[in-house]
Amino acid sequence: MGRGDLSPERILRLEAGAVVLLDQRLLPGEEAELRCETAAEVAEAIRTLAVRGAPAIGIAAGYAYALAAERGDDLDEAYRVLAGARPTAVNLVWALEQLRDDPTPERARLLHEHEVERCRRMAAHAVELFGSGARALTHCNAGGLATGGYGSAVGALRAAWERGVLAHVLVGETRPLLQGARLTAWELEALGIPHTVLADSAAAHLMAQGEVDLVVTGADRIAANGDVANKIGTYGLAVAAAHHGLPLYVVAPTSTIDPATPTGAQIPLEERAGAEVTSRFAARNPAFDVTPASLVAAIVTEVGVHRAPYETSLPRVVHVA
Amino acid sequence: MGRGDLSPERILRLEAGAVVLLDQRLLPGEEAELRCETAAEVAEAIRTLAVRGAPAIGIAAGYAYALAAERGDDLDEAYRVLAGARPTAVNLVWALEQLRDDPTPERARLLHEHEVERCRRMAAHAVELFGSGARALTHCNAGGLATGGYGSAVGALRAAWERGVLAHVLVGETRPLLQGARLTAWELEALGIPHTVLADSAAAHLMAQGEVDLVVTGADRIAANGDVANKIGTYGLAVAAAHHGLPLYVVAPTSTIDPATPTGAQIPLEERAGAEVTSRFAARNPAFDVTPASLVAAIVTEVGVHRAPYETSLPRVVHVA
Repeated sequence: MGRGDLSPERILRLEAGAVVLLDQRLLPGEEAELRCETAAEVAEAIRTLAVRGAPAIGIAAGYAYALAAERGDDLDEAYRVLAGARPTAVNLVWALEQLRDDPTPERARLLHEHEVERCRRMAAHAVELFGSGARALTHCNAGGLATGGYGSAVGALRAAWERGVLAHVLVGETRPLLQGARLTAWELEALGIPHTVLADSAAAHLMAQGEVDLVVTGADRIAANGDVANKIGTYGLAVAAAHHGLPLYVVAPTSTIDPATPTGAQIPLEERAGAEVTSRFAARNPAFDVTPASLVAAIVTEVGVHRAPYETSLPRVVHVA
Repeated sequence: MGRGDLSPERILRLEAGAVVLLDQRLLPGEEAELRCETAAEVAEAIRTLAVRGAPAIGIAAGYAYALAAERGDDLDEAYRVLAGARPTAVNLVWALEQLRDDPTPERARLLHEHEVERCRRMAAHAVELFGSGARALTHCNAGGLATGGYGSAVGALRAAWERGVLAHVLVGETRPLLQGARLTAWELEALGIPHTVLADSAAAHLMAQGEVDLVVTGADRIAANGDVANKIGTYGLAVAAAHHGLPLYVVAPTSTIDPATPTGAQIPLEERAGAEVTSRFAARNPAFDVTPASLVAAIVTEVGVHRAPYETSLPRVVHVA
């Protein structure tokens, strides 16, 4: 597996006795694998963002749970440790629920396979939303790294590029941890898609200059009413897009939809250590925000393109892997 | 002059044979002075942001012009080099025009003194816009460093703090060069004003959470119709503030108003090297944006608080130092 390899098993996989992750903290400078031999080690990798992205942490949790079963570890404890690793994404619990009755490597690998397959189906739906010569803006990393392969928002960009309707991608660098500049730019480079990184605060200005046609992001959790929790900054982009009459599309698998959460107000939003912003000053570091459904032009899942009113249009089925 | 000294002469001054600047590129880690012995050296210091902020670069240009006169240098050449150092702020040309007929150290020092005095008058006007217990958000550095002493937006915060009506300041870190995290936080620390740094993209989210009462920024150039060019990101904050029904106040001296520029569309917006964002990737680095007058709640100058329609409310007099 060489440099820039974005295959699902390169991003994360279950080996004998270990979950092996491409360490996303070190990309793009170094492509190093991290071996986690217990559920607690995988939870730590999730907490410290060695693996991040709502679908990818779900897959990692699934592998970790199967690993714990194989080791004969206490499965209730493994469930608890993994489910609590990060609060915002619903995929952790979703994946663990998928594995609960059949905590085998085969089941965990199937879950991974199905998440990647969902990405391809999402992309096929999302590509219909791109006009010819589209200039898209994306935020954070909703790429193969975030989904275990192919990507949600980046998957949509990939499909649009292959169809010849995508001209250019603007990538918000995504402070404080620069997932856009480090990860999305790395993926787009590997895919040969023209792109430019920009300071997050420049997005509204470029919209005003007429340089953006649509905004495409992933999601960490989608409430039943269509409110979308995603990387901090998504909400500001949504407000700016609305101000300029531009659509914001959210591309996410159904595993990200939480029918049990009525609105964004009930989604727990992680606030991380201020030191991620700066070690010099008192700092706030809200890691996610909620974009109200009223600012979301469409939510694309593997089922299709869903528009307001989301209470009725979002898929209600709880998907199994 | 000790650490954290924000006196006007510490920020910049004219000595025998040199303009001496507190090097803003090294703050807050190192408080080092930069000696510039020619107009070209001062122009380079302006270009490379050793001194930045619209009023401060005007003052620096004034000192440099007086220095050139004292040295017997070609004054037309000095004017050309200084006026062209950065394109967006109108203060460079404004200051040079003030000095043209009397390029003496005394005149240059008077210009500096008057700019600082304008800040105090602006602050006295602006403080009336703060409700009790105000939580203000600011962007970039419109502090003493940017104005040669006291500050415009930070001056307003300072006056509000002294009057007991300011509870807390949120400081956008201001990518890519972190003037908020490095410079504004340093000034607020020295002034003892409670503050927190945040990623620029978190501002809209904190507005939605009800944690912001008003936005206060400086300006690099104000067009006749009230459109405001300022550090990239100001426009996005203005859109977000409007969306949340929050006022954006621009605090700037009359030297920043350009009656010859009808609207923001005619303001040249500097786009700096992409390498300031990242040296790894293709990057865009627009350094300023324009906030349309419609999103500006008031513009505060040393003359008073000006509201729409700005075509008639902005002061028309061209102030001399």
